[in-house]
Amino acid sequence: MSQHPSLQPLDTIIIGAGTAGLAALREVRKHTKRYVIVNDGPWGTTCARVGCMPSKTLIEAANAFHRRHVFDELGLRGAAGLTADIPAVLKRVRALRDEFVAGALDATNDLGRARVSGHATLLGPSAVDVDGRRYDTRSIIIATGSRPSVPEEWLAFGDRMLTTDTLFEQPTLGPRVAVIGMGPIGVELSQALARLGLEVAAFSTSDSLAGLADSQLNAEMAALLKAEMVLHIGAPAQLREVPGGIEVSSGPNRVVVDQVIAAMGRVPNIQYLGLETLGVPLDKRGMPKVDPQTQQIGDLPVFLAGDANAHTPLLHEAADDGHIAGMNALVADTPTRFKRRTPLGIVFCDPTIARVGQRLADMDRAQTVTGTVSYSNQGRARTALRNQGRLYVYADKATGRLQGAEMCAPDGEHMAHLLALAVQQKLTVHDLLGMPFYHPTLEEGLRTALRDAARQLPQGRDSDLATCKAIGVSALE
Amino acid sequence: MSQHPSLQPLDTIIIGAGTAGLAALREVRKHTKRYVIVNDGPWGTTCARVGCMPSKTLIEAANAFHRRHVFDELGLRGAAGLTADIPAVLKRVRALRDEFVAGALDATNDLGRARVSGHATLLGPSAVDVDGRRYDTRSIIIATGSRPSVPEEWLAFGDRMLTTDTLFEQPTLGPRVAVIGMGPIGVELSQALARLGLEVAAFSTSDSLAGLADSQLNAEMAALLKAEMVLHIGAPAQLREVPGGIEVSSGPNRVVVDQVIAAMGRVPNIQYLGLETLGVPLDKRGMPKVDPQTQQIGDLPVFLAGDANAHTPLLHEAADDGHIAGMNALVADTPTRFKRRTPLGIVFCDPTIARVGQRLADMDRAQTVTGTVSYSNQGRARTALRNQGRLYVYADKATGRLQGAEMCAPDGEHMAHLLALAVQQKLTVHDLLGMPFYHPTLEEGLRTALRDAARQLPQGRDSDLATCKAIGVSALE
Repeated sequence: MSQHPSLQPLDTIIIGAGTAGLAALREVRKHTKRYVIVNDGPWGTTCARVGCMPSKTLIEAANAFHRRHVFDELGLRGAAGLTADIPAVLKRVRALRDEFVAGALDATNDLGRARVSGHATLLGPSAVDVDGRRYDTRSIIIATGSRPSVPEEWLAFGDRMLTTDTLFEQPTLGPRVAVIGMGPIGVELSQALARLGLEVAAFSTSDSLAGLADSQLNAEMAALLKAEMVLHIGAPAQLREVPGGIEVSSGPNRVVVDQVIAAMGRVPNIQYLGLETLGVPLDKRGMPKVDPQTQQIGDLPVFLAGDANAHTPLLHEAADDGHIAGMNALVADTPTRFKRRTPLGIVFCDPTIARVGQRLADMDRAQTVTGTVSYSNQGRARTALRNQGRLYVYADKATGRLQGAEMCAPDGEHMAHLLALAVQQKLTVHDLLGMPFYHPTLEEGLRTALRDAARQLPQGRDSDLATCKAIGVSALE
Repeated sequence: MSQHPSLQPLDTIIIGAGTAGLAALREVRKHTKRYVIVNDGPWGTTCARVGCMPSKTLIEAANAFHRRHVFDELGLRGAAGLTADIPAVLKRVRALRDEFVAGALDATNDLGRARVSGHATLLGPSAVDVDGRRYDTRSIIIATGSRPSVPEEWLAFGDRMLTTDTLFEQPTLGPRVAVIGMGPIGVELSQALARLGLEVAAFSTSDSLAGLADSQLNAEMAALLKAEMVLHIGAPAQLREVPGGIEVSSGPNRVVVDQVIAAMGRVPNIQYLGLETLGVPLDKRGMPKVDPQTQQIGDLPVFLAGDANAHTPLLHEAADDGHIAGMNALVADTPTRFKRRTPLGIVFCDPTIARVGQRLADMDRAQTVTGTVSYSNQGRARTALRNQGRLYVYADKATGRLQGAEMCAPDGEHMAHLLALAVQQKLTVHDLLGMPFYHPTLEEGLRTALRDAARQLPQGRDSDLATCKAIGVSALE
């Protein structure tokens, strides 16, 4: 395909070739050849290089190994002879990661001169400098992503201070590892490493694990994690060099480890971008206001998409951001306002933490009905020896409409999708109870929570199968 | 609770205390004390005693053991030292089964004299004989369940001829086992036993595995099963005694085994019930016509629910049948007509076979759009080394409404529920594409199939996130 990046002004310049940038690119390419996509550092998305994919690959190995603890009860012998070959586990993570990255590179490999490696700096809303070369452009899409947050002073620990950027590059790990920060990434990684047999100590300033809003759920999840690792939550952690390793202390608790993983969140890559040349107010982080329905900055032809805008740093939201920015960057007049999807957050720990729809804090609790189920005695979960966790559904008291859900439940990622569809479609608890629940499935547990909510709502007609109550046979719930 | 089974006529008599009978009981108990529930043989449901629960417990052990084949690739060592202790596996199946059965017994343990063990025979539409005692009654609910079908002449093989009624009672199995019949039960059991290390040879007269309607899906599933067992489909199997075991032959294929499992479907328990006393026409099986929306036989106060009516021998349908029968048995006038749930069938093999909504054969193919995805290169499935299978969605060409789906897909049971909700709620492909799909999940594979269908449907508005196309990064699909 012939590209014309030298014909200026460009219609747009995309800064960043991660998920948001590539989603924008897909739209831009449909309409113009007068564009450039610029990337600073390695090409390939955060997701493929250092995020979703390597972490999920690690987690699969960890969960497969962890399962050995139930082998004897299942009637399988020889589990004591199993070992996790950490270097081999990491090697597979990298090998698969390389394939996923190669897949991401395919999205830009055919772009010719429209694909530019370098550091972009805004010169205003219509011009960008890339390592000394100036591009005049009708619009700009900024999709520079995010990076792990690490306190400056901790960098002194050198290669013993890891983040997701470096973790998967290690030839081996441990045997003693501390994870600082128990947001989604900290919870996933600390559990995975503990399940691989490393001695993991996890620390979190926040009381909430992976952002769980319900305190009962949080307490259950904390208890489950404490069975697998050392976990100290509710106080900040300090690090210092001691003979034999790095000492991590938090209140009265201290532990010495070989490596520390900083999982303290991600910061948007908006420094050194020249955002100050746009002439719009920037907050104390240096962030301009971005409309989440258009991705536009003020009324400028400048769009900020993906992790870089710090709205919802999740892949599917970044892809939507990029799509919206790509659509809107090419229109001269009013940008299109997009309705965003139902919020959905999943943390790939076990049981799965997931949140769907409205946040608990944003609900009017007096107008909200809560239904719950514990998975500790759920039939199908018991057959699999995966009977842990709990699920909450929240519904509007007046209409019965599902508002949201929060859970730490076995295979919760799937039930979260079902609930997300229900919230997106404004379905009621009654609507959900009208669907078939196959036996024996984990979804029957969800049904128990829905029935719990339904009991607190106006009753449906008796002639409707959705009103069926439990039979009173535990295996059926 | 005081019961009054001696006050006659009863309001109703429930014959059979399985899932359908217990569901009927739940409704009946709410409204009257003038009832009896009769059970012939062991109390406890088919599901808990010999069906869903023991088979799923067996399958969990089998799949956990089977997973060892990917351990080395995941970086886990020592898998060669793992063994399946078949007697221990079966012992756990029975132990858990006993707990589930005890749970089912709880539903009738407090009934006092209303709980009657014995064989019931109808004396007409208003009277039932139970082992010589006559009950006059205003209505009758028949919920006598079903039993495995075994050719009469095969009974000569004695305790080497197994069915689900006897399989889980065995102290051990194999080492050579033949499974005759590859419906849902045959597929589940043959794969589970093969995965536990038994030498399994499976035979099916039908070309279709577990009722799969799509030939491509069926071929993929057959290829997957053939990697785990000997499989001969499309011709009937003959059995004969030979030195060293039972020879099973089918066309040119023969194999000698230690035990044979007959998985040739289930027959409704309607013999010796006295249905001929009702004065309604019976078909050649001896089955009267039963209205699936009322469970009523003709206009008699007699209701036939659960497996015994042979409509849809699935637990959740049996429970609904029982609910409907229980509601309708107590009304003197016109019974309520219930709208049944969206059809949903799941076979717990791996990848999971599932079917949702309308049958392929019942669709107008000229008016139907098909979307598909292969899981062989799906991102999340690859991280788990579970990248096998395929999924089809079917939508109405004019409206885009989802009509149904068929799949053999990893964790397909969950996607089947999502699709069942969509069909039940009459959602369109576009509606589904409007929901969030988290990354990386198996649901992203479903999205690929939906996008494939969407391409063949009238296009939605560009300003709608549901119209987002794939980014072209393989890890994201």
